Order: sequence, then C-alpha cells, then structure tokens
Amino acid sequence: MCYRGAAMQRNVIRAMAGGWEGVEPSGYAPDGSGTGVVRHTLVGDRKADRSEPGPQMELRYFEVRPGAASRLEKHEHEHYVIVKTGYGYAIVGDKAMEIAPGDVVYVGPLQVHQFVNRGDEPFGFYCFVDTCRDFSQQPTREELARLDASPAGAVAKPFAVPPPQKR
Amino acid sequence: MCYRGAAMQRNVIRAMAGGWEGVEPSGYAPDGSGTGVVRHTLVGDRKADRSEPGPQMELRYFEVRPGAASRLEKHEHEHYVIVKTGYGYAIVGDKAMEIAPGDVVYVGPLQVHQFVNRGDEPFGFYCFVDTCRDFSQQPTREELARLDASPAGAVAKPFAVPPPQKR
Repeated sequence: MCYRGAAMQRNVIRAMAGGWEGVEPSGYAPDGSGTGVVRHTLVGDRKADRSEPGPQMELRYFEVRPGAASRLEKHEHEHYVIVKTGYGYAIVGDKAMEIAPGDVVYVGPLQVHQFVNRGDEPFGFYCFVDTCRDFSQQPTREELARLDASPAGAVAKPFAVPPPQKR
Repeated sequence: MCYRGAAMQRNVIRAMAGGWEGVEPSGYAPDGSGTGVVRHTLVGDRKADRSEPGPQMELRYFEVRPGAASRLEKHEHEHYVIVKTGYGYAIVGDKAMEIAPGDVVYVGPLQVHQFVNRGDEPFGFYCFVDTCRDFSQQPTREELARLDASPAGAVAKPFAVPPPQKR
C-alpha cells in the first residue's frame, strides 16, 4: 500500500521561482540524468491499485531543455497536456503539431507520442495521468517506419530517452 | 450512449485570443447567465458510464469575473485546478487560501470548496474532473455555520451561484 500520496497531499501547491514549494524536481529517465527533461510531481503518486488512498489522478509538470524531447512511446493510459511555457512539437501518431503556451493536447490510448522542444528556451507543460496506469511501451518497428516516412519523421527523436527499465 | 466526445475529440486544442479554437464558451449555471463565470470545455464530456467512448477525464477552463465566484459546493469527485490568470481565493473546507498564476489546488472527495475572484481582473483556472462524476451537493447547514465562523467565512460567497437544478 502506498500512503505517501494521502499523507502528504496538500490542498494548495504554490508556484515559486523555478518550481513549486515543497516539490523536489526529479529526473525523467530511471537513471535521472542526461535526458534534458525534468519532472515535478505536483499532485498524486503512482498506485498499484485504485483502492489505495490519495488522489486518483497525478499532475506532473515537465520541463524540456532546448534540443531535448520526452520519450517516444505509447501506452494504454491517456495524457492531458497543457503547455505552460516555450514552444514544442506534439507528435501524436504520424502527425507533428507546433504547440505554444495555452495549447492543450489530448493523447488517446496507444497513440504513439512525443513532446519535442522546438525553440531555444525551456519548453514546459503540465501532464495529467491516472495514478493507476500501465507502463511505457516502445513503438513497434512498423510504427517507427511509418513515423519516419511521415512529415513528423523530420522532427521526431526516437532515441532521445532510453526505453524504461523493467520494473 | 454519448459519442460526442469520441467523434469530436481532437489531439490539439489551440489557444487563441479569448479562448480556444473550436471551443464555444458556455454559461456556468444551468440558465447560463448572471453568475459572472464562463466555462470552456477543452477535452472530454460528461458520461453516464465509463464504458462510453471518448476521453475518461474532462478538462475545463473557467473564467470568473471580478466580484464573482464559483458555486460553493461539495461532491464525491475530485478537482485538480491550475491557476492560469488573475488572483483568487481557494476555499477548501474552512480554509481560504490566496492563489495566483501557477498555483495548483487539489480538492478531495466531499471537501466543501469555492473559487473566488479576489482581484480586479478576470480570474481564470483549468479544472480537471472525471467524465463519470456525481452531481454538486449543497453544503449542510452545519458546514455553512462552521465556514461562516472560520476566517474563510469573510471571503466565501455562499449564494454566488444558485444550487444546480435536479437532472
């Protein structure tokens, strides 16, 4: 059982310069380094089971350095993204769409996706996910070939972040 | 069955001056007028049943005019709020907390809550909810008395928005 979320959940998480009060930024990949992506977990925490106490959803904020990108991946759970700062591409399926502050992105189940910084300043976005969710899957060889042959292939970074370690 | 969400769900919802492309703002209360609160439904749509197609969660943006407030209410479903613009109070239980852009608010099940504009410009925030959710409940007489006797009583606006009509 994971009581962390329930015990520590505050009602207000205050923004401050460079982040949020009481929120320790963490690395994005398991080894926590070298990806150029930083994660702030603002509300909630991953659960193994929906009956565990604490918020049902998890709100994270990701900041992607110029030249960097999130992992190219797919999974059953949905993403709801709101761009806070900077400029990026949202790759969803075989489309790459330019996104800017205030734009909202919905990624449905098993849609291959990636968020790429397309500017020269940090690209930051909020991302909502279920606390009970499946793990990242790498795109299949066919999906990678289709992406590569599409206009989105020009901006995708399939190897920006290594595949997740088995847990 | 509600296919609206599934049929119309786009991957990117673009911000534009005053709102988002293809999103028609709507009134907050059932009669759609007089509350000083406008709702933009950006992703998803209320479902009667989780098996209906379309996003599992709903992302809305609310804009509250100076002097106005959201409904003082409680319900089983959770709220996840991100302040986008302006200044407000988040009333949760018997606490009123000043909130500003970038602040995040979590409202747990059955916590009485209200969002009040405390400035002289629009107060706008994103709010995530489950698409399958219970309806608004009015606070009990005891909850109202406790709120009134607390510091939050000075800023709460119990009658800002009429109770929802039975559906």
